[in-house]
Amino acid sequence: VERRIRNEFYGLNLKGISPGLEYQLGSGGKRLRPALCQWLATGLGAEPSTSLPFAVAIELLHNAFLIQDDIEDGDRFRRGRATLWVEQGIPTALNVADFLIAEAFRLVAEAGAENGPLSRDLHEIFTQTFRTTVEGQALDLYWRGRSSFTVEAYEEIIRKKTGRYLAVGWVGAARLAGRERAEANAFWEIGDELGPAFQIKDDLLDLTDGKGRGGEVGCDIREGKPSILYAHALAHPGLDSGQRARLVEIHARDREKTEPQEVAWVIALYDELGVLEVARREMRKRLDHGVRKIESLAFAPPPLARQFGELAQFLVDRKV
Amino acid sequence: VERRIRNEFYGLNLKGISPGLEYQLGSGGKRLRPALCQWLATGLGAEPSTSLPFAVAIELLHNAFLIQDDIEDGDRFRRGRATLWVEQGIPTALNVADFLIAEAFRLVAEAGAENGPLSRDLHEIFTQTFRTTVEGQALDLYWRGRSSFTVEAYEEIIRKKTGRYLAVGWVGAARLAGRERAEANAFWEIGDELGPAFQIKDDLLDLTDGKGRGGEVGCDIREGKPSILYAHALAHPGLDSGQRARLVEIHARDREKTEPQEVAWVIALYDELGVLEVARREMRKRLDHGVRKIESLAFAPPPLARQFGELAQFLVDRKV
Repeated sequence: VERRIRNEFYGLNLKGISPGLEYQLGSGGKRLRPALCQWLATGLGAEPSTSLPFAVAIELLHNAFLIQDDIEDGDRFRRGRATLWVEQGIPTALNVADFLIAEAFRLVAEAGAENGPLSRDLHEIFTQTFRTTVEGQALDLYWRGRSSFTVEAYEEIIRKKTGRYLAVGWVGAARLAGRERAEANAFWEIGDELGPAFQIKDDLLDLTDGKGRGGEVGCDIREGKPSILYAHALAHPGLDSGQRARLVEIHARDREKTEPQEVAWVIALYDELGVLEVARREMRKRLDHGVRKIESLAFAPPPLARQFGELAQFLVDRKV
Repeated sequence: VERRIRNEFYGLNLKGISPGLEYQLGSGGKRLRPALCQWLATGLGAEPSTSLPFAVAIELLHNAFLIQDDIEDGDRFRRGRATLWVEQGIPTALNVADFLIAEAFRLVAEAGAENGPLSRDLHEIFTQTFRTTVEGQALDLYWRGRSSFTVEAYEEIIRKKTGRYLAVGWVGAARLAGRERAEANAFWEIGDELGPAFQIKDDLLDLTDGKGRGGEVGCDIREGKPSILYAHALAHPGLDSGQRARLVEIHARDREKTEPQEVAWVIALYDELGVLEVARREMRKRLDHGVRKIESLAFAPPPLARQFGELAQFLVDRKV
């Protein structure tokens, strides 16, 4: 994946695109999504080269989303350094994101090659994921700082924003490994469990200082993000009206105007209400469901299911 | 086109997307690009329903670009009302643009339907246009206010930013009407003439007050846009060093800090150097070349070529 990205997208010498493109792609991401795609395709018996264009396409779309998300959230740091819009301005950042999207669609077509039904399926899988993720991102923004936010609304956000998006590489990999569409679709359901587990872990990590966002704790609280903690706190019968008003007000306020002691107050409140524990329990439940679904796949060889379980465990044990 | 857009994209009831989507699609655009696609497809013998999804896809991509361009340029008005980012904020505007792009790609696949080679061609035509237009947009930004800007650099911008983008509907229409890829490709060359003619007209119109941008004259000068007038003025042997320094400085400065009398000075300078006339001549030359290329197409029926000529003439005679 890394080699293909470097060969294809470095040194293009496009004025106004290349510097930003190389800055973004060289920012030391985990390449988690393409790795998962390649790993599953190989595990199901495909040649790695068969699924490589699709895996790279996912990484490109992912980077386009990161660029846009950082603009939308006003995030100035990611992976320990300045975000692209801070470094090169919003206009260039938007053009680089578009370039990545255009190239991602080109690679999706390359992955399908001359095989009509496969090509159509991959295109649909990719396009549908793109659309659903954007819908999830829009919901995420819509619910910022709203007092009417609910656990159900949280479920819809993470199903759309994280679930599909984690699974797209698996569904594509299964299809590229020659599985029928219905078999490949089973991975959407697995994503619907593991994606949320992954996102809940993210929500929890935001309360620690390990996320590489310049060491800031509680970014989600400052940004008013509709996290699982915020959803469960609002739904908690033990939340009194004064606490509720303050919690909503802190989430609704501009991030620049939120004081560290207010963030600390919210975290202490979450702790007191026990919602941190509720979130951890929900995360483990999703993890279990996901792993059990994998084990039930008739076509997946047992070693693959075991590795899948280890991987899922790793995703929720991670420290960053 | 209008009916399909209304049926498919109004009333979707997507939180955080639908209000912005309907605001953008309802902003009274000319629907020029899809109309040109439908007109040519029909002229070459296709059923209008065959090319409709592709025509709508182009209109969606066009609207996504408009949303992003307005953010990049800081434009607050378009078509006589507030731009989407002004009305609903940059985050929502970006999500609506992404949604439009995702849906555009879905419609491109629908246009190709079960026909593998056609489907692949349409996808490639659309994706390549997307990428090239973004490259052109990036060049446009790159050259803002730079003193080293040349006529050749202007040519590259408009070939990439306007030429391909005007032609994509024709190339797709020809392919959808059953023409071979090589025949369809002839329309790229026509776009390479008429697109620039269209853009030069835009550059000239910017110096009048008819563009619907809140009545502002000389937006391009304020934004430091690399127009044909700026390119030819810089290349003019009669430009003295004081004028050159002032011209570049006005283009390089932030738009908010540019005074109306400075814009007026630039326009007067363009007039004095005769670059307005150079631009008009270039526009007519491109128009003639484009029309002659159309007339030389063996597969286009003569009435179609004549209509094409009238249409091209209309594009450069327009007042908005």
